[in-house]
Formats: sequence, C-alpha cells, structure tokens
Amino acid sequence: MAKITFVDVTLRDGNHTYRHQFTPEIVAATAAALDRAGVDIIEVGHGDGLGGSSLHVGRAAASDEELLRAACRVVKRARIAILLVPGFGLFNDLEMAADAGVKVARVATHCTEADITEQHLRRAKDLGMFTVGYLISAGMASPEQLAEEARKLESYGADYVNLAESQGHLVPTEVAARVRAVRGAVKIPIGFHPHNNLGLAIGNILAAVEEGASFIDGSLKGFGGGAGNAQTEVAITALKRAGHEVGADIFGIMDAADVFSKQVAPQPMPVIDNDSILMGYANVYGGYIHPVKHAAERYGCDPRKLVLRLGERKVVAAQEDVVIEEAQRLAHGIRKAA
Amino acid sequence: MAKITFVDVTLRDGNHTYRHQFTPEIVAATAAALDRAGVDIIEVGHGDGLGGSSLHVGRAAASDEELLRAACRVVKRARIAILLVPGFGLFNDLEMAADAGVKVARVATHCTEADITEQHLRRAKDLGMFTVGYLISAGMASPEQLAEEARKLESYGADYVNLAESQGHLVPTEVAARVRAVRGAVKIPIGFHPHNNLGLAIGNILAAVEEGASFIDGSLKGFGGGAGNAQTEVAITALKRAGHEVGADIFGIMDAADVFSKQVAPQPMPVIDNDSILMGYANVYGGYIHPVKHAAERYGCDPRKLVLRLGERKVVAAQEDVVIEEAQRLAHGIRKAA
Repeated sequence: MAKITFVDVTLRDGNHTYRHQFTPEIVAATAAALDRAGVDIIEVGHGDGLGGSSLHVGRAAASDEELLRAACRVVKRARIAILLVPGFGLFNDLEMAADAGVKVARVATHCTEADITEQHLRRAKDLGMFTVGYLISAGMASPEQLAEEARKLESYGADYVNLAESQGHLVPTEVAARVRAVRGAVKIPIGFHPHNNLGLAIGNILAAVEEGASFIDGSLKGFGGGAGNAQTEVAITALKRAGHEVGADIFGIMDAADVFSKQVAPQPMPVIDNDSILMGYANVYGGYIHPVKHAAERYGCDPRKLVLRLGERKVVAAQEDVVIEEAQRLAHGIRKAA
Repeated sequence: MAKITFVDVTLRDGNHTYRHQFTPEIVAATAAALDRAGVDIIEVGHGDGLGGSSLHVGRAAASDEELLRAACRVVKRARIAILLVPGFGLFNDLEMAADAGVKVARVATHCTEADITEQHLRRAKDLGMFTVGYLISAGMASPEQLAEEARKLESYGADYVNLAESQGHLVPTEVAARVRAVRGAVKIPIGFHPHNNLGLAIGNILAAVEEGASFIDGSLKGFGGGAGNAQTEVAITALKRAGHEVGADIFGIMDAADVFSKQVAPQPMPVIDNDSILMGYANVYGGYIHPVKHAAERYGCDPRKLVLRLGERKVVAAQEDVVIEEAQRLAHGIRKAA
C-alpha cells in the first residue's frame, strides 16, 4: 500500500469553474481549511497558471501575487504551489512567487514538449523551490513517449513528473500502462492529475497508485476544467478505503469542502454533461467546445461529428483554425482531412 | 473484450431522486428515447420496486401499473423490467406486470438472504419472464458469501445474478474479487449495479466487466439513490472506450439523457456530497442519513461518528432502532456496542 502526497488544485484548476474570479478572501479561507485537513500541497492562481489572466482565456479577479500571498499567509503545514506554462508565465513571475512564500513550482507543457520546461524548471530550482515537470494532455501520448519526456524532465532537475490527463479520456488500464512506462524510465516520483469526463477520475487515481504513482491531484467539490477534477474529499476517502496512506483526515477534508462551497455559493459543482463526455471520448481539449459550437452553427454541420473529427486530427490547444477547416469539410460532405 | 447487456434503471432507481413522482408521461418519453438509443433492458417503477409506494418510503405519483403500461406501449426493441422486493411486492403484482407486457423480473433481497427470492423467481419464470436474482448491498458480503448466495439463485432458476453495490463502498479490486468468486460458483451470467458514493461507479463497472460481468446497470444523468448510480451515458461511453461491445449508440444515449433531463427539469443531477461519502465509506445504507441526523441532534452526538458506529455494527435496512441505541451510547461516551 502506498504513501500518497496529496496536491489540492481547487484554488488553481477550480478557478476555471469560477471564471477566474477567486478573490484573496476565498483563497485564504479555503487554503486555511485545506491546511487544517492535512493536505500536503495547495496549488493557487489563475486557472491557466501564473500570468494566465488575459482577455483571451479570462481576466482574473485578483493578481497572481494577491492570491498567492493570501494563501501563503494562512498555511501552517502545507506548501503552496504555482502552475506555470512557459510563455504565459515568465521568470519574474517565478521570482515573485518565491518571494511571496511559494515552495512548489509546477512547470507545465504539452505532453510531447518537455524541452520547453527546462529553463523554468532550472530557474525554480535556483530559487529553492520543489519543482514538478507537468505533462498536459498525457492521454494524447503513448506510454513510450511519456517515458521519454519524463526522462527529459528528470534531467532538468524536476523533483517529480506529473501526468495530467486533461481530457479525461483514458480508462484505468491505459493509465496504468502510462504510469508503468514512466516508472521504468525515471527514478523520480510520479504524480497523476485526472479529469472526470468519463467518470473515471477516482478509478484512474487508484489504477495510477497501484502502479506506483505517489503524488495525486484533486479539487474540492471537483471544481476544475470541463467535467472537473477528481473530487478531493472523495479521492482521499477512496484512497484510504483502498488501504493507502494519505496525510489528510477524512472529516477534516469534508469540512474543507464545506468551507469552500460556502465561499463560492451558489456556484454548483461540475457535473458530467454530454459535451464533457464527447470531449473525453474524442480526446479533445475542453476549450474547443465553444469554437466547435460556433463553427457548427455557422457552417451547418453536426457539432458532435466535428468533435470526433478534431479527435482524429489530434488537435492540441491553440489550433482553433482547424475547427473551421473541419467544419467546412463536414458541411461539404468531405469524408476525411487531408 | 466483453459483450454487454445494458440495463437502464433511471425509471426505477432514479425515482428515488425524484421522490417517486415519475408520471406516465415522463416514463413514456424517457423509455422511448432509451429504446431508440438501443438500450437492452429498461427498469420502471417506484424506487423500491413493485408495491413500494407507501407513506413509509414515499407515495408514488402514479400506480405501478400506469407506469409499466406507459413504458411497454412505447418500446420497440427494449424489454421492460420490474424490481420486486418480496414483502413489498406480491404475486399479484408480478401477474399485473406480466399482463402489462413486462418481460424481465428482478427479484431483490439483502445479499445474504437469497432464499427469500425463491418463490417469486419461480412464479416469474412460470409467467414466462426473464428472471434476475438481485443481491442488495453486495459490498456487505464476502466474495465467498456472495458465491454461496449466487448458487442458490441459480438453483431457483434465475437467468442471471445481479450484484447491487448499494452503498458505493467497494473499490475496484474488491468488486473484481466478488465477481470472480461468483463466476467460479455459477454458470449463469453476472450483472453489476454500482452506486457512486466514492466516485467509483464507472471504475467499478470496468473492473466487474474485466472479471466477466456482462449485465451492467446505469441511469441517465446518474439519477438514483444517494450519490446516484453509474451515469448511463457515461458508462456506455466508457465501456466502448475500454473496447467492450454495447448495443446502445453514444449519440443516441446522449440524446436520451437530454430527453430525460428536460422531462425532470429543474431537478438537478445527483452529486457526491459529504453525506454520500460518509455513508459509502462506512458502508451504511443511504436511507439511514435522516434517522442519523435526527438522533444525533436529539441525543447530542457527532452524526459522523454515529455513521461510523453503524458501519461497524453492519446495520441493514429496517434496523433503525440501532441508530437511537448508538446515538445514546456515543452521547454517554460508551466506546463500543456490546
């Protein structure tokens, strides 16, 4: 049975559910409750990480620095983490975070582009931070590809590699195969970050842990992109039921869920709707749903078929031009992309 | 990879979420949509099955017969099923159902009391129905106990045995062990009915199917007791993603979910709240939550500790007197039940 380090991402990934409107007050109350419950690491910030606030992906209600300082002020045992996607986030964002008291830097990129993270991982290390190489959309790469990328992250000094299955596409046997491949390739620990599009966030966590993953991400009330993340209070309870060791306390984490849901009331919990299922099935990033609906209406094609086409083309974030191309092809009855 | 017979229980177990207020109109619209989607079996009726309507567990908006006739009238391919708990449901209820066109009788009892189902299974068989021995709270029995009970059901002529994990307590390895034990004991097929208290409804389905379960229960939008059932449209998609064969079509089942949610709007989908997690963790039937809260307030004890005590005592439905006994013990600081 495994010893798990639990990483709660409510105050970062959950910000997507709340349209990036988390305030320093919400952050302080929630981080304090997570800290009391015994959660090990608490990730805070804009949904897209440091520097994410923008007209394109959503303006935040407060600056990264305000949110991070609000969290760092209240925690007694837990470490505060940031997510940084190189390009969105810059070196001076990392320096600001270190100065605010942030102890953990998770540097994120698409799962086949680990080399993009090297400079930021090394800079975070120089700033004395615990560093994490974070592979986005890990369900789009094969086990062998992930093993190769994980080797790079290890060589850059990452303290662990986090497999983020951003589309909620994988089933437990597929998660197990990926964790196993990475475990065979690197000596650093492995983390796992699920999404719940196919209802498998918790099942996939248990499969990952059985294969040796030891850092697990979740969020209170499941707040997070698309169908949401693994619901922290459920994940911790299920891990304990399966016999694993988690520092956090069951009653404490339920209390934290209550504190958080009062802070964000009346915002409802994410549920698995048809859009989420479809994106999960097709392995297409959730951010595509609005461009898809818009293009399907404009060009007169079935939005569901359009999503399946995008899945076949393995689009990654920021390839939205492909949506229009495929919508036009579908509308004209052209069977396949060139 | 397995060939799955999908059993949608929205119009029976989902009636719990809707306080047993399903009308013939809701039933007809939803059953027709499920039939169009290609679902194999559609269970209909009061949440507690035939004869369940009562002041004690909830009065239904329409009679069993009205609901069943509404469903039987609209289906073209699917078979309509009833659930019958001997005691709630009587022989003449079975006869009425057969006369209305019901083709499948699922006769249910607590997982260690299969002998209670014999007469009703035989009567259903005589009426020409496809019969199912349905073991409630299957997470409260060991794999060996379930194997023994399944042998009895097979000897009574059941066409398959259904393991209903009513509390959502089990993790996938535990589900696998139970299905494996039953598979070793009987020749008839095995079904699985999960609940989602620990977020494992879908993960447990995949584990059950890998061990040979071939009849799978779910409900649209997850409607069902407590934290709800496996969400049918998610379960079917996840089964297909895992490579299994399911008759129902993904787009069709999403359409059925839409039809149903419009029928029951604005009733929200079940979510996993702290009460559900606690009941799942402690393996206590969801119906205990209100007696627990009432007793905890009256006697001044922690309702969460009270649930854990009930779990230790392995209470089954209709032992509500134990709640008061344990609430008093807790309030007086008495460590354990005699």
